[in-house]
This record gives sequence, structure tokens and C-alpha cells, in this order.
Amino acid sequence: MDALARAGSLSTPLRDGDMLAAIDLGSNSFHMVVAAYTLGQLRIVDRLREPVRMAVGLDARGGLDRAVRDRALACLARFGQRIRDIPPQRVRALATNTVRLMAAPQSFLVPAETALGHGIEVISGREEARLIYLGVAHAQPPKPGSLRLVIDIGGGSTECIIGRGFQTIERESLQVGCIATTRRFFGDGRLSPKKWREAVIEVGAEFQQFANAYRALGWSEAIGASGTNKEIGGICAAMGLTKGAVTAAALPRVRDRLLEAGRIDAIDLPGLSAERRSTIAGGVLVLEAAFDALGLERMAVSKAAMREGVLYDMLGRGSGHDPREASILALTQRYGIDEGQAARVEGTAMRLFEQAAPAWKLDPDDLLMLAWGARLHELGLAIAHSQYQVHGAYVIEHSDIAGFSRQEQQFLAALVRTHRRKIPKSAFDALPDRLLPSARRTAALLRIAALLHRSRDSEEIPRLDLLVDGPRMVLGLDRRWLHNRPLLRADLEGEPPQIAALGVQLEIATT
Amino acid sequence: MDALARAGSLSTPLRDGDMLAAIDLGSNSFHMVVAAYTLGQLRIVDRLREPVRMAVGLDARGGLDRAVRDRALACLARFGQRIRDIPPQRVRALATNTVRLMAAPQSFLVPAETALGHGIEVISGREEARLIYLGVAHAQPPKPGSLRLVIDIGGGSTECIIGRGFQTIERESLQVGCIATTRRFFGDGRLSPKKWREAVIEVGAEFQQFANAYRALGWSEAIGASGTNKEIGGICAAMGLTKGAVTAAALPRVRDRLLEAGRIDAIDLPGLSAERRSTIAGGVLVLEAAFDALGLERMAVSKAAMREGVLYDMLGRGSGHDPREASILALTQRYGIDEGQAARVEGTAMRLFEQAAPAWKLDPDDLLMLAWGARLHELGLAIAHSQYQVHGAYVIEHSDIAGFSRQEQQFLAALVRTHRRKIPKSAFDALPDRLLPSARRTAALLRIAALLHRSRDSEEIPRLDLLVDGPRMVLGLDRRWLHNRPLLRADLEGEPPQIAALGVQLEIATT
Repeated sequence: MDALARAGSLSTPLRDGDMLAAIDLGSNSFHMVVAAYTLGQLRIVDRLREPVRMAVGLDARGGLDRAVRDRALACLARFGQRIRDIPPQRVRALATNTVRLMAAPQSFLVPAETALGHGIEVISGREEARLIYLGVAHAQPPKPGSLRLVIDIGGGSTECIIGRGFQTIERESLQVGCIATTRRFFGDGRLSPKKWREAVIEVGAEFQQFANAYRALGWSEAIGASGTNKEIGGICAAMGLTKGAVTAAALPRVRDRLLEAGRIDAIDLPGLSAERRSTIAGGVLVLEAAFDALGLERMAVSKAAMREGVLYDMLGRGSGHDPREASILALTQRYGIDEGQAARVEGTAMRLFEQAAPAWKLDPDDLLMLAWGARLHELGLAIAHSQYQVHGAYVIEHSDIAGFSRQEQQFLAALVRTHRRKIPKSAFDALPDRLLPSARRTAALLRIAALLHRSRDSEEIPRLDLLVDGPRMVLGLDRRWLHNRPLLRADLEGEPPQIAALGVQLEIATT
Repeated sequence: MDALARAGSLSTPLRDGDMLAAIDLGSNSFHMVVAAYTLGQLRIVDRLREPVRMAVGLDARGGLDRAVRDRALACLARFGQRIRDIPPQRVRALATNTVRLMAAPQSFLVPAETALGHGIEVISGREEARLIYLGVAHAQPPKPGSLRLVIDIGGGSTECIIGRGFQTIERESLQVGCIATTRRFFGDGRLSPKKWREAVIEVGAEFQQFANAYRALGWSEAIGASGTNKEIGGICAAMGLTKGAVTAAALPRVRDRLLEAGRIDAIDLPGLSAERRSTIAGGVLVLEAAFDALGLERMAVSKAAMREGVLYDMLGRGSGHDPREASILALTQRYGIDEGQAARVEGTAMRLFEQAAPAWKLDPDDLLMLAWGARLHELGLAIAHSQYQVHGAYVIEHSDIAGFSRQEQQFLAALVRTHRRKIPKSAFDALPDRLLPSARRTAALLRIAALLHRSRDSEEIPRLDLLVDGPRMVLGLDRRWLHNRPLLRADLEGEPPQIAALGVQLEIATT
């Protein structure tokens, strides 16, 4: 039985009527969407949105303005009330660009998690791009085989994706959202044609980095996702230019209307909501730069966005189509990991997990992390043998790995970092406090499994009893089997002082 | 013309009678070997060896004892006298384990380079392994197609290699040399059977890490390289046990003779030189552990060692068979680098190099580094787009890359690290002072080349004039061509303050 199946067997499968919720702590708005699982499909039953505009509160040093922070926490408290009756494993709350840019994200995340009553994960821009594409693909099913370009202009970042069906092919995330761009170029509130031209060149340079690669790949339709694009499409329609799409002919007319206003607070566009007046200039600017760089003629708009993608991703995670599994396989192949050794360590880690999980309160998520940690623990050997646990952790922490949140990558990186040699005090620093007990215990299990297989032979370990009780961990091995393995004996004798750094008191018992 | 050919055309090819020299700053002895190039072959014309025993002077914190340091510098001054008449590009001096372990290697290397009158490069254990194998393969040509195991017990480290022909397949370097091991287990001068047994287990654990993989691969002959193995073979012969090889039957008898002595200063083995008495116990111990772990029955001995490998490697570097070229290609493939973009940047970097080299005194080595830096500059994209110059530099600095010294890898890593975005003050910290001017200037050329190709289009740059004069760098571009590229213009305008961190004053001239 593989790890996914094991994890599945430990968690309760979805049943008709079960609720799922996705919360998106965006740089512009916070969103929550609640869906009911019905006949294998998701039916959206509730949507909440609050224009928190978190990006407005971010200062140049990565600090968050007090008032904006309070607004965010109050919103999360309201959202939290709505999800109180949904089991936590069916809720996912994700934070994006503004939290990525914070100098001390934990100082926001800890009270935010308390307000929401649920953990909050930070995701990378490219993972955000993947989830946006997934949301759009489910809302507007793509034509089989044809390529689609999706552009999402957020408050802090803009994502550009090319995909086919439900799979992304290219994902880019740029530091040019509508709030950030408005502040950067029109911070004084004035709009001038000269400033606009300079800004289009600067923002265009961001798109230019991948524009040729995207154009070479091509697409048969372009879709703009999320609020800003929808708003611009609405303006085009209200101005009588299109029926709701954005076109290369309409966009300059919207821009000219903006520039005629001369000042942000004088903007008066048909169809523009009052709430978006302060950020629409940046949105139109980013979209103009995207149209130029990518040679777009027409872009349809969709109200679907990341939050819907998160729901469908949860559905996949629970049903054997976990996108993380494919990512682990891709890493295994790219770095030429010895799959035989990885499978031996994974198998032993699973035997240990089963015995430790009840007393140590380890859950199916921990099991997946342990299995994937075992699959990747030798990744760093592709770089160098010396200190390979450090190199592997570096790659896992910094890579774009589809399907994983930052915390999940940091969890995996910590397992790989601590699986051998001295355990540095800082190994778990990146993880939120709520994950520390299970991360340390999972790390202890991987460490023991890797140690037991250090000789890389294929023989099954005859006896492998594990008894855990708080910090205590008694590992029972067959006396005769161990007697014939003097190297393993020496390793096991040296292990208790090392593994103590994980808060574990290891004892070896032989019979 | 590719970079190797260009570099070749800039350097003088070897002619009959030319001298080459390799210097090996080993942990046990310093060696120098001088060879004459004759009819495409190398003929050794001189050998020098001094038992400096540098590893003895290394303390636990990575400091070097004053007396040992003076002994090393005096030896290098004598070696320096011998190479005074050999052109510097035909001399290579390499340092191994003891210098790798120094806390502040530059504080030894700088006076050492002054004493020798030549630069000294530090190489990794696995590069050392590759060069040892190469030396043995040339001294005792392998049977075509068959696999060979080579073991080299040095003063500080031990290398184990499996290869076929002149190519290595597996390379391992362990922290168990004869000096280090003698100090670790028999530091009090006493030899006891109990201590020996424990030590064999501990040292054996090091071999055990890869023993199964090696045994699965197999070999048809085993050869022990360098002095310690040769000495043990000589003892076996002097004891009448073999004709000079080491066998599984003979080795325990040598060990028992050692243990009978009870104390290191009482060791009295037939055939043992007085100079090696203080370290032979560690050597026999390491070899016994290797025989056990690898299941060896018989090992022939060869006096060939790394220094001969260095000579043959220099011959390859000069003749279009540079092993570094194959390593760059392997990295390009593993990390899926966009070869089209790499080739565009390399081509432009070469055009810039040709114009800058005379005034900036850049040599063929710098040209190779620039070409390889261009080939690898986008490596980090395989990890993540964000900060990819940091990820690429990390991989290049930490990877085992066959054929490269540490300094060469650090040089390449610095080029990749500084090719875009802000240039950190620390980017060149790892490089010795003598390489700084050319490293900074080469980095400036790569930076300009990468910037000119940021849009990734395939169009040739029509005009590309470069005039350098001390820190000044005037880049001449075609006015009309540049006029049609507003993004490039914006990038070029922003570049002078950035590139100033490389000590370069950039001006753009258009006509």
C-alpha cells in the first residue's frame, strides 16, 4: 500500500453533503467560498468577500500598518465563524503576495490563525498561478487539446499561466499587482501620459522576460481571472466597446479616459465600482503592458479565481489525484534519486509511523510528509555527497514544487535536513509553532528509518517494534539480527544524544 | 568557433620538449613531478617528495601548527625554485584534505603561493579521486571494457574509485587518512586488540555507506595507489607473504605484528621505512576496513598517484579534451537549461571578451570561465524563477563537478550570482585576491551579455563595440536598433549604478 492510499485510509472519505471551504487572504480582497460535495462534484453554497486591501498596509520594510492589520483580523474572525462547523481537514486558508513580502510573516499569521480558528498556509507565486488556472479550468472547461492563456491581476502580484486541460504548462508570477503598481507609479495621485508611458515600459519589462517563450508556445484563447480583470471587462462593456471582454482596441480607450481624469480621485469610468477607483489605474496599466508584450487581441474575463482552484485541489488531494504526488515523482527523476533505497526507507518509516501515530497524535498529513521525506531524503546527493542533507533541504525549500504550500515545503525540507548527522537548532525555525510537535516527531521517525537502512541492503528488518510515550521512544529489534550488524549497532549506540535534539529520548531494546 | 577552440587559439599549443609540472600539497607528503612533452606523450623527468606531514599540524579548530606551517612553506620555496623556468600555464599546484579542513585556508595559501611563486588551487575529495584514477590509469593501462577499483589512502582522506578505461564511474572520498586515523584511535601511542576492533567498525561504517553499491557494480581488479598502499605491499613482500600485493590472507598477519608491538614507537615491521612508522597503524587499519567492507581478496599496488593524474589532466585541458567541458554539458542537461538562450548569451559574451581582453589583461582561463558562466547562468531556473541567480550559484558552488578546482567553481558561481539584479558585496569573498580583478571584469562582461539578451529573441545584435580602459567601459550600440527596443533602453539606463559594484564605470554610446 503506498503512502497516498495509507493516508487515504486514515482520513474519512468525502460523502455526499460534506462541506469544504477555501479562504484566500489576497492582497486586495479576502475571499471565502464554501462548497457542498454532491455526487462527486462541488456545488458552491456560499461566498464571502471583504475588500481588506492588505497590500495598502505594507510598508517598504515589510511591516504591516496597524489599521489594516486590525481590518484583516476582524475579517478573519467573521470568516472563522462561518467555518466553525466544517471539519478542519476540509478547510484550507492560503495567503499570497502581501504575506510573502512581510518581513515577519509569523507576527501576522499567528493572530490571524487565532482569529480564523484554522491554520493559514503561505503559497508561492507559481503555486498561486497553478491554483488560479485550476479554478478557471473548472469554471470554464477548456476545449480538449487546445492551449489557454490565463492572466490574473491581483493586488500585489500578477500571474500568467499557459495550460492545456486541467494542467499548467507555464506559470509565472510577477511583482506587479494593481495596488502595488498604482502606489509605485501614481503614488502622488496624479495621472500623466508621460508617467504612464514610462510605467508601461517598466511593467512591460517584467512580461518581456517570458513573453517570447509564451508566444512561441501560443494559445487559442486568453482569459482574465479575478476581480480586476472582471472590472475592466465591465468598463469596456459599459463604455459600449465590447460585450464584456477586453480587446486591444478597447483597452487604449479605457486608458485614455483614465488619463483625461488627470487625478486618481477624479476617475469617473462607466461601470467602475467606487471601491476599485483607487486601484484601477494600476490594473489597466498592468493589463496594457500584458497586451503589448504578449501581442493579445482579445481576452475574455472570468470571475473564477484561486479560491475555486483551492477547492478543486482539495478534492484531488482527498481522492488519489494529489498533485503533490506527481511533483515528488518529478523531483525523484530530475535528481536521479536511488528509488530502491528511497522505497526501503519509506517502507520502514511507514512501519514506524503506524506504531507511533496514535500515541503521538500524528495525522494523515504527517504520514504524507514522512513518506515524501523518505522519497526525497537523498535528493542532495545529486549535488554532492558531503553535507548532502543540507543541499537536499536547500533544493526542497527553494524549489517551485507544484501543489505544495511554503509550510509544507519547509516541513519536508526540515525532515531532509535532520535525517542524518548533527541536528541544527535552527532546522525547524521556518515552521509555525502549531506544526512543531508533529514535525519533530516525524523527523525522528525518518531519522531512525534512514539509519536502519544505512548499509543499503535489501533484506527486510525482521522485528521492528516501536513504543512511544511522550518524549520516550523505545525501539525493539531482534537481538540476533542486530548482533550480526556491528556497524548498525555502533550507529544506534551513537544515536540517542543526536536525536535528543528533536526532543526524543531514544532507547533500544533487543530480545 | 566554440569557447574551447577560442581558448586554445589564445594559448600556445604544447610543443616537443615543453615541460609541465604538477605539485601535490598532500596531507602526508608534498610531491612535485616534472614531465617533458615528447611526441604527444609525457615523460617524467623529475620527482621531488618531502614528508611535510601537514595533517599532523592541523588542530581540532582548523588551525595549523607554526612549525608544520614553516616546514610546508620551506618545502614550497624549494619546489618553486625548480619550476621557475616553466611557463605558469603549464604548472598546476593542488591542495587536498588538510587545506580543505582549515578554518582559514587563505592564511596558509597566500604565503604558500608566495613561497611557490605560483597559484595553488584547492580541490574537493571527489575531484582528487578522479585525478588519482587518471594517474593510475595512465601508469597501468586498464584492460579495455573491464572495471577497476582504485583505493588511495592519503594522510587526511581516503579515496575509492571505480572506473572503466580512463573514465571514473563512482568516486568517493572519506575522512579517514592514515595520519588522521592514527591520531584519532591511537593518539596515546598504544595499540590494543580491543581498540583496534572498535576502530575497524567505526572506519568500516564509512566504507559501508557505498560498499553495497560498489559491490553491485563489481570490478575485475583492485589497485592501491600512493605511498601508504605501496608501503603495506612492501611489508607483505618483506614478510614473505606476497610478492608485493596486499591480500586478504596477508593483511591480518601485518595487523597482528602491529598489535604485538603494543605501542606505536615499538613497531618493527620488515620493510617499513622509519619515516612511516608513526602513521602505518592508521594506514593498515583503513585498509583492513576497506578489505572487509568491499570483500576484497587481493589488491595490487601502484606508485602512481594524483600528481600523475594532474599532469594528464593538464594535457587534456590543452588539447580539446578538457574534462570540464563534459561536466558543463552534464549540468546543462540535468538542470534543463535553455541552450538557445545560453548560446546567444555566450556568443555575445565572446564578442565582448575579444574586445576587452587585451586592455583588461584577461587570459584564456578567463575566457573559459566566461563561456561556461554564460552556459550555466540560467541553471537556477530549474529550482525557482525568483532569485534564480542565487540558486544557480548555490548549486555550482556546492556540486561535485569533475575537472574543476574549488576556486574555479567559486569563480563560476560568482559569475552566475552577479549576472543580474543587485550585486552583493560578498559575491567574490571566496576567491583569492589574485583572481579578483579578472573575476570582476569577466562578471561585468557576462552581465552586459545577459542584459542584452533579456528579451530572449534570436536576432543578432548589429553593432556591439566595447572599449575598456581601466575601470571605464564604453559600450557602443546602434542608435536605430536601440531606439526600437524601449525595454532594453530602460534596462541599460538602470545598469551603470548596479555594475559599479563590480568596479566598472559603464557608459552607453549610440551612433
